[in-house]
Order: sequence, then C-alpha cells, then structure tokens
Amino acid sequence: MPRYRLTIEYDGTPFAGWQAQAGGVTVQSRLAAAITGFCGETVTVFGAGRTDAGVHATGQVAHVDLARDWPPATVRDAVNDHLRPDPIAIIDAETAPDDFDARFSATRRHYRYTIVNRRAPLTLDLHRAWRVGAPLDAGAMNEAAQLLVGRHDFTTFRSAHCQALSPVKTLDAISVARDGDEITVKASARSFMHRQVRSMVGSLELVGEGKWPPSAIADALGARDRAACGPVAPASGLCLERVDYD
Amino acid sequence: MPRYRLTIEYDGTPFAGWQAQAGGVTVQSRLAAAITGFCGETVTVFGAGRTDAGVHATGQVAHVDLARDWPPATVRDAVNDHLRPDPIAIIDAETAPDDFDARFSATRRHYRYTIVNRRAPLTLDLHRAWRVGAPLDAGAMNEAAQLLVGRHDFTTFRSAHCQALSPVKTLDAISVARDGDEITVKASARSFMHRQVRSMVGSLELVGEGKWPPSAIADALGARDRAACGPVAPASGLCLERVDYD
Repeated sequence: MPRYRLTIEYDGTPFAGWQAQAGGVTVQSRLAAAITGFCGETVTVFGAGRTDAGVHATGQVAHVDLARDWPPATVRDAVNDHLRPDPIAIIDAETAPDDFDARFSATRRHYRYTIVNRRAPLTLDLHRAWRVGAPLDAGAMNEAAQLLVGRHDFTTFRSAHCQALSPVKTLDAISVARDGDEITVKASARSFMHRQVRSMVGSLELVGEGKWPPSAIADALGARDRAACGPVAPASGLCLERVDYD
Repeated sequence: MPRYRLTIEYDGTPFAGWQAQAGGVTVQSRLAAAITGFCGETVTVFGAGRTDAGVHATGQVAHVDLARDWPPATVRDAVNDHLRPDPIAIIDAETAPDDFDARFSATRRHYRYTIVNRRAPLTLDLHRAWRVGAPLDAGAMNEAAQLLVGRHDFTTFRSAHCQALSPVKTLDAISVARDGDEITVKASARSFMHRQVRSMVGSLELVGEGKWPPSAIADALGARDRAACGPVAPASGLCLERVDYD
C-alpha cells in the first residue's frame, strides 16, 4: 500500500481549521473527500500541523496511504481537480517510505506571522495579515522575542484547550523584522502547542506598542500562567510555511 | 479650495476598473461616493493610472479638491470609514499644491506583474497572479524584455481601444526575475498605453515557454501591428505599485 507525501497550500479563511470535526468544513476533510472523488478510496490524511480556523499554509505536509500505485504527479493533479473550487492545492506529491509520518517524523515546523502596521484597512492582504494601527517598534519586539528562545515551560503561551502532554517545549528560533509597514514574525520549533505562535505574537505586540517593556515577556513566560499572556493575535496573520524532515 | 494628494491601495477583483463608467462599480466612483459620504461634497477624483477591471494597486495616486481645509489624516481615516467594506483604502493623504495633477504631473509609473509558475491551482494568490503551468525560462524572458526598453512605436503592444494620441512611448526599464515558483515582471515608464504591460507580459510568456525565441519580441515590436502580439496576460497578475513625481 504505497504511502504518499503531500505538500499542501491553502487559504484557511473559509475553513474550520485543519482537523476533521463535527460542524464546519475542514482542510483535512476536504482533502479526504477529494481523494475519494479521485480514486474511490476512503482515506485519512495525516497532517504535520493542525492549523486553527482561518490559519493559512504554504507548506503544510501530510501523508496518506492509497491502495494503488499511482504516479505522484497523477495524484497531485487529480486531487487538485477534485478540490476545486476550494482554495486548497497540492503543490507537490511524492512517494514516501512506509515509516514516514507527516506529524511524528517532522523535525521542525516553521510558522510566519504577518502584521501590517498602518491606519488604513487591509485590501489585498485582507484575511492574510493582522492590521495594527498603533505604531509598533519591531526592534523592541525582536529583542523581547529572543527571551522566548530555548527550552521552557510555555504554559503562559498555550491555549487552555491545548492537549499536549507537557507544556515544556523548545523554541529554536524567533525573529521580528520590519519591511515598510509590514512586520514579519518567524518562529521555528520541532513542535508548537495550540495557539502558541498567536499567543506569543499577541504579547510581542504589546511590547511593540510600548505597553510592555521587552523584559515583560520573560516575566510572562516565567509566570507559567495563561492569565499572564497578552491577547491572542488573530488567525488571519498566521501561515504554516514549511515542515522539515530528516 | 485645498487640493489633496491620495495614495490608494485596492484589490481590483470586484471592480470594473479605475475609471467611472456606466455599468459596473469602479474604484474612482467608489472613492467619489465615499468622499461625498464624508463631507457631503460632489467631487471628481483624478487618478494617475486608469487601471483595467481586475487590476490591483498598492500605490495608485489621485488628487481631489475639497471645499474645506481638513487635516489630511482626517480625510484619510474618514474616507476609509466610508469605503468599508469595499477593498479600497487610502494609505496616505497629504495636501498638495494647486498645480499638482496626479495624472499629468507623474514622471514615472511602476507596474508589477506576478506569474506563479506551477501546475497546482492558486489558493492564497487567487486573483493576485497569473498561474502558468508550463515551465518558464525567466532568463530568456528577461533577455527578450530588454529588447523593449527605450523609445519605440508600441502599436503591437497596445489595445485596439487605446486612446493615446501617439503609439510612441519610452519604456524606461523592464525586468523579469524568478524567486521559487514566482516570476515577477517589473516595468517602469512615464506612461503606458492601454493594456501595454499585459500585452508585453503575454508575449514574454511565449518566450518563457520556448514558443518564441527572445528575438521574436523585437520582431513583434518592429511589426507595429496588434496582430503580432501574443495573448494578453490576465488582469489578475497586474498591480500599479508606485507613481513618481518631481
């Protein structure tokens, strides 16, 4: 039973997140339905990142087992045909070893969060970014972000609904950089907890506005208390950019 | 009567282009209506680039005269409020001298055309780019594009409906560059004729596919015949990025 590794892009706006659930169309359920439409098989598609409602991906990775040995390009093109008109596309498909697991084999996940720092409403970036009207100091945000790097108890920065067994995770890298009125936060780790990136960005935004000094990020982290977190940043700004495997 | 210079961003997808016309909502008419909503005056908004239906802008420039001397930030914020929920936003407003004319004072217009070169359908870039499935040689496209630089009779590359008095224009610069599967064409000139950028991009795409040698662009230009042009590239990929003034 050949296993396929899929690289997937989607506009998360119309979906109730990645994971199949009662109520709401999800990326995972649409992919499974498109694969059924293509080859008639009922499948489960296992993804690397369980993105929330409204969160995007340019490089989500998933694996799926099919009964027949199709050429990967056929899988890509045929499933894409069956995904229309939904904004989900398989960018790349390849065969993978039987022990390849999109979720558990992943060694690093890379997320990007986009803030547009201006007074004017969004037009071309609507549903693709978080507009913040107050002037933000990206340098201070980047300084504060470095306090999150390393192995920590991230209880402050995870959702109350997070199902991870342990709140201790290692954040490999995080950066905040401005280009014109666009501020990009990039974060990389083996794994993130539920709402972790959006929770970190929401607190960093307070630093950017000057409401928190950069050191307050360390205080919030050290509190290990969800109540110490700033407001969670909106889903629209978040994008799963890439997943690494050995 | 103070004159205001407005820098405007819009998602051109839902609009019948910039210019007010019978049938179809235009960017110009929505702006005029929003200004009326704000201050009660009936105005004409004069734009630097008369973008076609579906063409975007991140840096369109326009001027408008208002009876009252409002602070520019008030004009920006109030008109933006009245533009909701349409994807048009005034990024910047400032007062301008009486002889500033957004169209006729412009010394250079900068357009960007985005091609996504891949088999998979667009998701996040839907309505923001032209997807081309056949592999394109961006180097050959750039080589061919240089044959268009300078002062030429651009009859081949203008729409049959173009109202410019002379087909002789100077193309200051054009470049074609690839970044991953994204190919960006940038073109700069004092002024462009109707559909000129999309006509040039459509012919350069034929060079990218290998259907035309780069030299065929010079032949097409030299023909001074609309029939010698390749297919016109779709509006969705085009964006008016910036307008320069002395």
